[in-house]
Amino acid sequence: MKIQHQISERAYSASGFAGRYQKLVTDTVIPWQEMILWDKAPDTEKSHAIANFINAGKALRREDTGDGFYGMVFQDSDVAKWIESASYSLMNSPDPELEKELDNVISLIAEAQDKDGYLNTYFTVKDRDKRWTNLHEAHELYVAGHMIEAACAHYEATGKRTLLDVMIRNMEHIRDHFIVKGNPGVPGHPEIELALMKLYRLTGDSRALELCCHFIDERGQDPELFIREADNRTWSVWNSNPRDEGDREYRQCDRPVRDLEKATGHAVRAVYLYAGMADLASETEDEELMAACRRLWKNIVSRRMYVTGGIGSTVQGEAFTVDYDLPPDTAYCETCASVGLIFFASRMLENEINGEYADVMERAFYNTVLAGMALDGKRFFYVNPLEADPGISGVAPTHKHDLPVRPKWYQCACCPPNVARLIESFGKYAYGENEDTAYCHMIASGKVVFANGIELVCDTDYPHKMDVNYSVKGKGRLAIHVPGWSKKYDIIRDGKTVDAELVNGYIYCDIDGESIIEMKLDDAPYFVYSSCLIPRTAGMVALRRGPLIYCFEGTDNGSVKALRIDRDSKPEISSFSEILQVYTVSVKAFREDASDELYPDTPPESSPFTATAIPYYTWGNRGETEMRVWMR
Amino acid sequence: MKIQHQISERAYSASGFAGRYQKLVTDTVIPWQEMILWDKAPDTEKSHAIANFINAGKALRREDTGDGFYGMVFQDSDVAKWIESASYSLMNSPDPELEKELDNVISLIAEAQDKDGYLNTYFTVKDRDKRWTNLHEAHELYVAGHMIEAACAHYEATGKRTLLDVMIRNMEHIRDHFIVKGNPGVPGHPEIELALMKLYRLTGDSRALELCCHFIDERGQDPELFIREADNRTWSVWNSNPRDEGDREYRQCDRPVRDLEKATGHAVRAVYLYAGMADLASETEDEELMAACRRLWKNIVSRRMYVTGGIGSTVQGEAFTVDYDLPPDTAYCETCASVGLIFFASRMLENEINGEYADVMERAFYNTVLAGMALDGKRFFYVNPLEADPGISGVAPTHKHDLPVRPKWYQCACCPPNVARLIESFGKYAYGENEDTAYCHMIASGKVVFANGIELVCDTDYPHKMDVNYSVKGKGRLAIHVPGWSKKYDIIRDGKTVDAELVNGYIYCDIDGESIIEMKLDDAPYFVYSSCLIPRTAGMVALRRGPLIYCFEGTDNGSVKALRIDRDSKPEISSFSEILQVYTVSVKAFREDASDELYPDTPPESSPFTATAIPYYTWGNRGETEMRVWMR
Repeated sequence: MKIQHQISERAYSASGFAGRYQKLVTDTVIPWQEMILWDKAPDTEKSHAIANFINAGKALRREDTGDGFYGMVFQDSDVAKWIESASYSLMNSPDPELEKELDNVISLIAEAQDKDGYLNTYFTVKDRDKRWTNLHEAHELYVAGHMIEAACAHYEATGKRTLLDVMIRNMEHIRDHFIVKGNPGVPGHPEIELALMKLYRLTGDSRALELCCHFIDERGQDPELFIREADNRTWSVWNSNPRDEGDREYRQCDRPVRDLEKATGHAVRAVYLYAGMADLASETEDEELMAACRRLWKNIVSRRMYVTGGIGSTVQGEAFTVDYDLPPDTAYCETCASVGLIFFASRMLENEINGEYADVMERAFYNTVLAGMALDGKRFFYVNPLEADPGISGVAPTHKHDLPVRPKWYQCACCPPNVARLIESFGKYAYGENEDTAYCHMIASGKVVFANGIELVCDTDYPHKMDVNYSVKGKGRLAIHVPGWSKKYDIIRDGKTVDAELVNGYIYCDIDGESIIEMKLDDAPYFVYSSCLIPRTAGMVALRRGPLIYCFEGTDNGSVKALRIDRDSKPEISSFSEILQVYTVSVKAFREDASDELYPDTPPESSPFTATAIPYYTWGNRGETEMRVWMR
Repeated sequence: MKIQHQISERAYSASGFAGRYQKLVTDTVIPWQEMILWDKAPDTEKSHAIANFINAGKALRREDTGDGFYGMVFQDSDVAKWIESASYSLMNSPDPELEKELDNVISLIAEAQDKDGYLNTYFTVKDRDKRWTNLHEAHELYVAGHMIEAACAHYEATGKRTLLDVMIRNMEHIRDHFIVKGNPGVPGHPEIELALMKLYRLTGDSRALELCCHFIDERGQDPELFIREADNRTWSVWNSNPRDEGDREYRQCDRPVRDLEKATGHAVRAVYLYAGMADLASETEDEELMAACRRLWKNIVSRRMYVTGGIGSTVQGEAFTVDYDLPPDTAYCETCASVGLIFFASRMLENEINGEYADVMERAFYNTVLAGMALDGKRFFYVNPLEADPGISGVAPTHKHDLPVRPKWYQCACCPPNVARLIESFGKYAYGENEDTAYCHMIASGKVVFANGIELVCDTDYPHKMDVNYSVKGKGRLAIHVPGWSKKYDIIRDGKTVDAELVNGYIYCDIDGESIIEMKLDDAPYFVYSSCLIPRTAGMVALRRGPLIYCFEGTDNGSVKALRIDRDSKPEISSFSEILQVYTVSVKAFREDASDELYPDTPPESSPFTATAIPYYTWGNRGETEMRVWMR
């Protein structure tokens, strides 16, 4: 059933927008992350993540473990995500020094692996006897999943099996525990499922597929699993109670996954799981599982997704809530959740070519994911609201999580490395292939050498300009996704306009030899409207240009709350902002006088005003100020 | 400094709107409450409140306490508030049977009082040795306050000193503990302050004044008071930690009360305290204290109050948040908090005659307080949101507290009896007096015999009709508040229009003999506008007629979210609703088609629609449906 698969990141050499972002991550984020992991970054939350591996190695050698374990129970995953990002970075821009540093860290990881294949510094340093007794809270399988992904990326980048062999042994250990020995259990935080699919596809090791299948099939079969587990132990990481209302939904354990109807619970857990499900469905041609994936997808994109591609409406459980509950100001929209939504979308594309999946990838990437990182790559949002009000955002009890400016680094540092690895592996999401077709899911400037022999150069200033030029050579087909947002498009092949039929959002071009295909998309900014089924934004309007959702900041407009957009006007590209490196859009509006009286009985005076909008992903880069995506 | 004071409820015989509501409370709410207190109400949360007093009596006599104590730590206050309501009810409509039932309950209370004057069933039944060791959580002084208020009302109604003497002994006991013996402590939940002022004014007992003054002066002097207290005990009621962030603000203990700048923390605690402060300020002519009250008042009404007179923007701590944070859908707006706001306003009027205080009393009463009770007097809202969406309200994690229909009775039953006692004592808030002037703060149909000799009959269908007819006789002055909401008004005295000067919102008429004064207020519904300093409602519009804020329900309009008001139109009185017993208002609007797509790029089709609004206080009386106060 698998239609196509991701390319190797090695096959893609980025230029343009993606190239600049990859360079930023390579030059700034990865070195900064590395310093943090080694506790060498000044004025930053202590990480201790590498020290944990060193101390775990000591523990195994029965040496003094020094300062022991420090950090979140899933602290190891920070190292894993760094290795993964750094490995992709090596594929994008070779760096022998970085490769050596990776070797060093990987040797520390290898030394922290127990003889039986077990690998987790929290338990190895703190208490070996507690291994596998708290799947509910302790993230052991989640961490293993990230490390498997890192191992796959490292092998792909360097051809070295150092980490890959460690993680194959670890996978064998896990399989032995859950399948051979038959211990009950599923991951408290899904992630390993999609990692096992990567491992299986890379190595062909069917045990990885079997283990993935096991975890997905077992999930939710026993809704009391974690209660039973908790009853058998006397310790806890966070005192979370599996009997709590909503705990099962939070962990997607309330029912077998094939019975899931709506996207519920912790948003990152949810989309990581759904991505693994879609992966497995495409590999095993499991129509029932695929149907569940389609239902969940539809529920997300038609009921529970923000216009920015953010998901997870509430801080309470960092979770999905109910249909149409999409508050802009108290939104959670965790950066990691949008990364996970891209994972899910990318896997759905492996099952069926449908432009909607590619459109959602783009929406999530260019808006919430990129907003997760400051333009200088040094500060990060974990939470991505669609509205900020200084004095309320980050301050009022209901808005504590919605910060108006990006903080430097979090103790729970899941989001920054997730953004880093996604950007460094952008080619995998932008391009896909099968034996005879090269797929362009997202527009990504650069060169691609497909394994099927087709070569492609994509030249574009997208998403800032909407003309895309593909030079292609080889034999087969080129499938180009025409973004769903573009109200019109022209396809020009070798100088001649072609009337290309759109099949599920893609045009198909037979390739035999060299050819130049130009795609001209709609350049004009336009309004999008909130469905009035969404209580919080009913009747409001947002601004979009290409894949970019725009927002209005106080820096450009004074009080944004006081503005009302003139919907009869036409928004226009206004100028190029040197600070933000983006085109701003101007739109006619009315500014209303702010009444000091809360509820005056005369309408506010209003005067015409030309409002300036900037791409949402660039908000919060010029100090604390008001921000709004949805305008009245 | 005291300008005027409340009348005795005995002096007012209600008719019209207030009369009907008092009858509803007398006929329905008070008997129902009584049944609950005696655990005789079917299908209702167990109260055990009277049983607690019986068991406390047994404990004191060293008899078997049977089923012990049950309920909230402040369960006694339910009985107190019932006694208070029932006593006012006796003044409004004598009922020897009810008086006997009161005697019976009061005798049980007297038997539950310890020899030393201590009275609290929680500690007397459960553990005498823990008395006064947990002011932070245990509400001992709060309960005492309510019982003092009950005693005052009972004495006022019946002339019997049975409960009054009990509570004077209790006051002596408290004074002995905190002043004579010098034990440190202030109420964890303010309430006793305003109660002690009532006791002082009723009895002239200066020890009550001294005790009130002590609690107010001590408050916040030692911000670590409750931490020290907690360190000295090994038990807790709710495991609330006085070291928690925000705990001091929650309890208004972060600084001395004279230094308070903004209304913070638990909204009910806050306004109860401020009412006590204003009371004390007027009695002791304490300008510094009065200045603090004015600051707090101004902060509430100009930054932190809903258009419905609701206060407390968040469920988290049932609390005030920050300036302009007034979300309509997740509002807390506890019914009790608006009752407390009326207490505060009424006390401010004793310090200075200013129509703004009367206007806020009216706003809170006719909107949030009345909305707290179903039209049949049988169901109650604790929380009064300005927006309800079935499927989200009461369901989404952020909206669990915002129920779309009134439940029957709560285990924490503070609000229903608070509404009952306020309605039964409506005359006290509507009318005031001093030696030569009769004050009409709120329009209240009925007869008033002022202690200063002036007699008044107010004849009106207010708030449904806006003509008010005062027949007055006696010698002195009549001060009539002209509601601030009325854009125009006519005063006709004995058939002749008079050009009455408005002094701080009041007109003054010298009275010598008989006179008829008619006040004709603006009858027309009109729009009020949200200041665009309020992020959540900036640019939105609400509908008002007289003191009544209107809302739009799905029952009359279909989806309310889909409506946009035509602001150029004039809202009009449309018809009298037999079910709701109110005038509905119709307003021109546009209905927008609901897009099933979340974010369409074409504007929704819209068509003209005549929308129907009902007074906010009547919402939720016709089943679960959408509701909105603020409209786009």
